[in-house]
Amino acid sequence: MKVLGLIVEYNPMHNGHLYHLKEAKKIVNPDFTVAVMSGNFCQRGEPAIVNKFARTLMALKNGIDIVFELPTVFALQDAGGFAFGAISILNNLKIITDLVFGSESNDIKFLKKIAEILYTQPKDFDHYFKKELKKGYSYPNARKFALQNFLKLDKDTLQKIEKSNDILGIEYIFSLLKINSKIRFHTIKRIGSNYNDPNLKSTISSATAIRNAIKNNINFSQSLPKNSFEILSKEIEEGRGPIFLEAFEPFVLPYLRKLKRNDLEKIYGFKEGLDVRFIEAANKAGDINEFLELVKAKRFTYSRIRRLIFYSIFNFNKDIIEASNEYGPQYFRILGFTKKGQELLSIIKKYVDRPLISTASNYKKVLEKILKDTEKEWNVIPKLYLQQFEMDINASNIYTFFYPNKNQRKAGMDFRKPVIIE
Amino acid sequence: MKVLGLIVEYNPMHNGHLYHLKEAKKIVNPDFTVAVMSGNFCQRGEPAIVNKFARTLMALKNGIDIVFELPTVFALQDAGGFAFGAISILNNLKIITDLVFGSESNDIKFLKKIAEILYTQPKDFDHYFKKELKKGYSYPNARKFALQNFLKLDKDTLQKIEKSNDILGIEYIFSLLKINSKIRFHTIKRIGSNYNDPNLKSTISSATAIRNAIKNNINFSQSLPKNSFEILSKEIEEGRGPIFLEAFEPFVLPYLRKLKRNDLEKIYGFKEGLDVRFIEAANKAGDINEFLELVKAKRFTYSRIRRLIFYSIFNFNKDIIEASNEYGPQYFRILGFTKKGQELLSIIKKYVDRPLISTASNYKKVLEKILKDTEKEWNVIPKLYLQQFEMDINASNIYTFFYPNKNQRKAGMDFRKPVIIE
Repeated sequence: MKVLGLIVEYNPMHNGHLYHLKEAKKIVNPDFTVAVMSGNFCQRGEPAIVNKFARTLMALKNGIDIVFELPTVFALQDAGGFAFGAISILNNLKIITDLVFGSESNDIKFLKKIAEILYTQPKDFDHYFKKELKKGYSYPNARKFALQNFLKLDKDTLQKIEKSNDILGIEYIFSLLKINSKIRFHTIKRIGSNYNDPNLKSTISSATAIRNAIKNNINFSQSLPKNSFEILSKEIEEGRGPIFLEAFEPFVLPYLRKLKRNDLEKIYGFKEGLDVRFIEAANKAGDINEFLELVKAKRFTYSRIRRLIFYSIFNFNKDIIEASNEYGPQYFRILGFTKKGQELLSIIKKYVDRPLISTASNYKKVLEKILKDTEKEWNVIPKLYLQQFEMDINASNIYTFFYPNKNQRKAGMDFRKPVIIE
Repeated sequence: MKVLGLIVEYNPMHNGHLYHLKEAKKIVNPDFTVAVMSGNFCQRGEPAIVNKFARTLMALKNGIDIVFELPTVFALQDAGGFAFGAISILNNLKIITDLVFGSESNDIKFLKKIAEILYTQPKDFDHYFKKELKKGYSYPNARKFALQNFLKLDKDTLQKIEKSNDILGIEYIFSLLKINSKIRFHTIKRIGSNYNDPNLKSTISSATAIRNAIKNNINFSQSLPKNSFEILSKEIEEGRGPIFLEAFEPFVLPYLRKLKRNDLEKIYGFKEGLDVRFIEAANKAGDINEFLELVKAKRFTYSRIRRLIFYSIFNFNKDIIEASNEYGPQYFRILGFTKKGQELLSIIKKYVDRPLISTASNYKKVLEKILKDTEKEWNVIPKLYLQQFEMDINASNIYTFFYPNKNQRKAGMDFRKPVIIE
């Protein structure tokens, strides 16, 4: 049996994603296809354009058999944390045989070589890396230049580790190495626009371009599969979207104004003076974009700054994130599945040693049950399980408050909305 | 020398306030007139329509000689806490001889009698009071019915302790008794509309009616002195107002959604199950008015609920409020003065044993200086002084974020804006 695993955000699911999915199936020829997907907040440090259930439906209608939620504590991390969370889920499901990810370079050997260097950390490389960090470069840039020096890369080869998908790909391989996974991995050359390309193309556009088109009321229907477009349109019509970072402005900025430096001390990621920069910028800025500009510096990417905003409002405490980055996701939250996916779920159920959760309101009962279970050994840290799950619930409760339609804002989406069966 | 003291909010300063001021001067015939005024948040639990400096200018242009800020920890309390803070300032200035306050009943003997009962707490009264509270009445209502039973009041007399100004008046007298003040007090019968009357009248309208008119774009110029109207109009033109509670909705409700019950445990006033009610209502409500309706119950007034919203976002911790209600305001923050007021300030300076602050950015230096002072004994609790002052600064920083004009939102108003000299 072959099971294809994908790591996605589908924010929203567009033609490029559909192409990727079809090509991945051509490579692997799987019996089943499983996706791990970000929930209501994405790796760029932004709220998803529509909620996770709508995006799950897009996935199921287009050929994914089961969608698992990547817990918020991973979805909102940098490429490394994001990759580790997603790879941990895929590996711990025990039945995934192949992973396919998009790549600008499509040079899998090279990506693997890089991941191995990062994993084994040869002394010389580490020396270069620290030197670049000292120069004030951001973490990804410092790593890039260190690799350049360590491997004596020419400019063309260097490009292969500069693009978003390649960077994520290296982290996927790194995490597979780290947890000693047997999952095979393959790449697909990304076609069409770049991940961050802000402009709408004819049929293959980036998710960024599509979100911009929605924001600016430009027709984007040609960029999405019809069913995905319909789901998105319904969400917007009923006032559950579109959600942009800007909506969070009157929450985030006054919230940061009320913090003191030691309030941010407990929060993950506020190092290198970012605590002071955040509070000072919040006190100066009149809007969220001015805030981002004020915090921005050579060593901090915009994505990192945006993610940190959510770390502060969601209380991303260091202890939770550090434990999460050591022990991985403590549950498999099922957002939706197809009939075919249901067959696979009954197989998965036999093998997993962390709970499969399809009814979120049962999350405490599920924990109680496995703690009493004498027949099976479960690999769950109770405290971390609760922390991760409650972070997801809280993230949804805050996300839904920013729905344009006031009548849709009620909290508790995770408890009310049943798993999507398609 | 006679110095008239007034306790005001001027939100905004209107014809009724001007009438009150003139009548008060007729009664007292003072050499100087001093006002204690709420800052950027008012006793109804709402942001002021325009900031404290604009409202100070209104006061100075209309016959007040010095405006002192009532610290936020008092301005946002119920009638008792509000009165205690304001009376403490007036009394501790050492030079106030007379207090005049508005009264619906204008029956000063009766108000004094009530205040004395509340101050001496006869056993029988206390018995009635507890009985009414048990029935589920709000604090002011329970007190009203207890007084009714204790004094065997008829309906007409009962009315005298039901109106906002009379309720505040009783608290002013109560606080004067409590601190054994020698300030004489007088009442003026309120004319025109009731404090809470929502409708605009010809020339004397309530501040509530005027704020509603501003919200609904109804002409209200006839209700304000010309200079007050001009100041208000300038604030609105330049985008520093008007500010309504609704502006705080996308801050307050997601903020409450992220709280847990034990986060509210430290906050003042969250008793009688209000912690649970607040969190549940925030999770259900799609807007601030729905939130207020959901929390509302017989024993909780809307004003109290609104005040509690700000207690939670400003971290009105129990220890700060309880200490404040015991020791009073730790400083006299001067918001503005006239030339005449300046003369009085030089006299006040000689007598006070708590610092007079006209340059807010000096607040730490001022404290250091008095701690080292060997010539004079200062009556200041350093920790409480800092807590109260920093609460005012923080309240301004959050208030100004909600200015309609993004370019005006920069924090630090208290440090940038010089004291108003008129």
